[in-house]
Amino acid sequence: MSVFGPSATLGIVGGGQLGRMLALVALDWGYRVHVLCQHKDEPAACLAHRCFLADFTDEATLRAFAESCAVMTCEFEHVPATALHVLEAHGLLRPKASVMLCAQNRHAEKQAIQEAGFLVAPWQKVTDEKSARDACQVLGYPSIIKTARMGYDGKGQRRLDNDNDLMASAALWQAGTCIIEKKIDFVCELSVVACGSVAGAPLCYEPSRNVHESHILRRSHVPSGVSVALCQQAQRIARQLVQHLEVVGLLAVEMFVTQDETLWVNELAPRAHNSGHWTMDACVSSQFEQWLRMICGLPSGDVRRLYDVTMQNLLGEEVHRFLDDVSHKEKRVHIYGKTQARAQRKMGHVNVLSKRYP
Amino acid sequence: MSVFGPSATLGIVGGGQLGRMLALVALDWGYRVHVLCQHKDEPAACLAHRCFLADFTDEATLRAFAESCAVMTCEFEHVPATALHVLEAHGLLRPKASVMLCAQNRHAEKQAIQEAGFLVAPWQKVTDEKSARDACQVLGYPSIIKTARMGYDGKGQRRLDNDNDLMASAALWQAGTCIIEKKIDFVCELSVVACGSVAGAPLCYEPSRNVHESHILRRSHVPSGVSVALCQQAQRIARQLVQHLEVVGLLAVEMFVTQDETLWVNELAPRAHNSGHWTMDACVSSQFEQWLRMICGLPSGDVRRLYDVTMQNLLGEEVHRFLDDVSHKEKRVHIYGKTQARAQRKMGHVNVLSKRYP
Repeated sequence: MSVFGPSATLGIVGGGQLGRMLALVALDWGYRVHVLCQHKDEPAACLAHRCFLADFTDEATLRAFAESCAVMTCEFEHVPATALHVLEAHGLLRPKASVMLCAQNRHAEKQAIQEAGFLVAPWQKVTDEKSARDACQVLGYPSIIKTARMGYDGKGQRRLDNDNDLMASAALWQAGTCIIEKKIDFVCELSVVACGSVAGAPLCYEPSRNVHESHILRRSHVPSGVSVALCQQAQRIARQLVQHLEVVGLLAVEMFVTQDETLWVNELAPRAHNSGHWTMDACVSSQFEQWLRMICGLPSGDVRRLYDVTMQNLLGEEVHRFLDDVSHKEKRVHIYGKTQARAQRKMGHVNVLSKRYP
Repeated sequence: MSVFGPSATLGIVGGGQLGRMLALVALDWGYRVHVLCQHKDEPAACLAHRCFLADFTDEATLRAFAESCAVMTCEFEHVPATALHVLEAHGLLRPKASVMLCAQNRHAEKQAIQEAGFLVAPWQKVTDEKSARDACQVLGYPSIIKTARMGYDGKGQRRLDNDNDLMASAALWQAGTCIIEKKIDFVCELSVVACGSVAGAPLCYEPSRNVHESHILRRSHVPSGVSVALCQQAQRIARQLVQHLEVVGLLAVEMFVTQDETLWVNELAPRAHNSGHWTMDACVSSQFEQWLRMICGLPSGDVRRLYDVTMQNLLGEEVHRFLDDVSHKEKRVHIYGKTQARAQRKMGHVNVLSKRYP
């Protein structure tokens, strides 16, 4: 049960904004930060004490990185299995590789969720035209085909309303294993960020209600507006998944809520999550502070919510609203330092605080 | 009235913890950060996009640094005049050089405070034995001799109780101009961090009551415990000094309170101040966020206080209390990432939050 305090070196695998916001907390606490990524201009790379620039096939660099860190964590889940094994062989990876592998494959993920006793949308594995047709026979339309790997923000998935849509998706299963899942007719989507420690019971934040536009998260609302009972059930599911998977770190759990108040688990992410960014300004301890605390074996911080809050993503050119946003005292802005404001790219976010609780 | 948003480059002159905490806010807002200092391991240096390593006589490097930044600020006041002029000739320095020069010389500082209409301890300029003896004739004992320049944390000053103490201090005036000031018999010390913008009236935080031990700040308490009237007077003094000196940025004002509730201005610092670290966790906008806002020409943030708070400095080995401190939910820890925990060295600080206000 290793504990790491300031002056220890935190290793962040990946150079994106989640790694950057984790690094900011670690630096405020005096940790050294090493980042493994592919380009020195990535958001997390530019504030690291040391960058290891390599792709995930460069075993020597992976090893050098692992040996330079007291503890490592991945800021995105699609790290190749071979790389995860090298990192784990030469250092301490939290969450462990098996958690990452589960979250990066939709089969393993859905199986784990079902083993833990929770509902997922009915689904079938698809490897070829026959299994695809069989799946749609069983599941019916509308349904969704998703690549088993590397899907995010709607990439690698497609809605299926009929056999034509299905046949037009052949490229997906020809490229690799897919799943087809029944389209859940949900009334809203909730997500919960749960914290798994080396010792002691899991904790979690309040659920947020998430609004997507063209498959990209637009806003998260807390409180979510669903019943207290449903909030508690969502939190219980997240905590139990942390225990089932033995997560040391964070686990973000996305769930669909149907008309009958049933919760269907959609996706897991073993890291901080965009839908948890509201915690940066509405809680004493943010999801990034909790991430650091969990992987360093520190006691949990304070996850209670102090404000009603809406988190708004700044996509593409919206980042240029900065000068207006910072003129509103109730808006708390975070910008990721990306040089190009490409359309739909996540450039930053704003937490709009409203009612404050004593 | 130039305004700088994210993707602009902020230049920080000096590599200490004040620069580091300013950089952390700037990075959270997507700014690029350049640091001018002497060693790449200084607290602010290790998280900068780019470091310019030089002493303050290296004009070419000063110029290159200035030309690389949209706006520059000094995180300590003892930057040599020649260096300030080079920076100002090749870039935008906020606060301007004249403010820095005033704050780094105890004569100019006391004269400015008196010109603005506020009280300072009776004082005399001292350049040799005669002027020293004359000063003590006029002021009497106990008094304090201070070097005009480069004094901080009690360095370059000495209490005088008699002529022997005076003569034993000859080395001070032989090394450079000094002042002797009458020892003020104060009941407490207050400080106020005020914010000066390019346009609009100055703002300030609530005064803190500061407790020193062997000339080093140990704790700051907010609320200060002095009367509302005295708090308001202290804030008025700080705001008027910002206007008198035309500070764009921050001005920290240290004051003594005597039994009769008179305020005597002791020292000015044109930057964030150790006694303002409580704002990092007890206010929505910290003194570092306000510093960034002011020098970038952004509107002011929210300087209201949300908690009762005591700021405790972590000196030397006290930094190793970290693991205990982070286990208390009401304690918010900040560590500066200094490698050597030398005795009395400022290694970090803890804000202990108590009563919370809606």
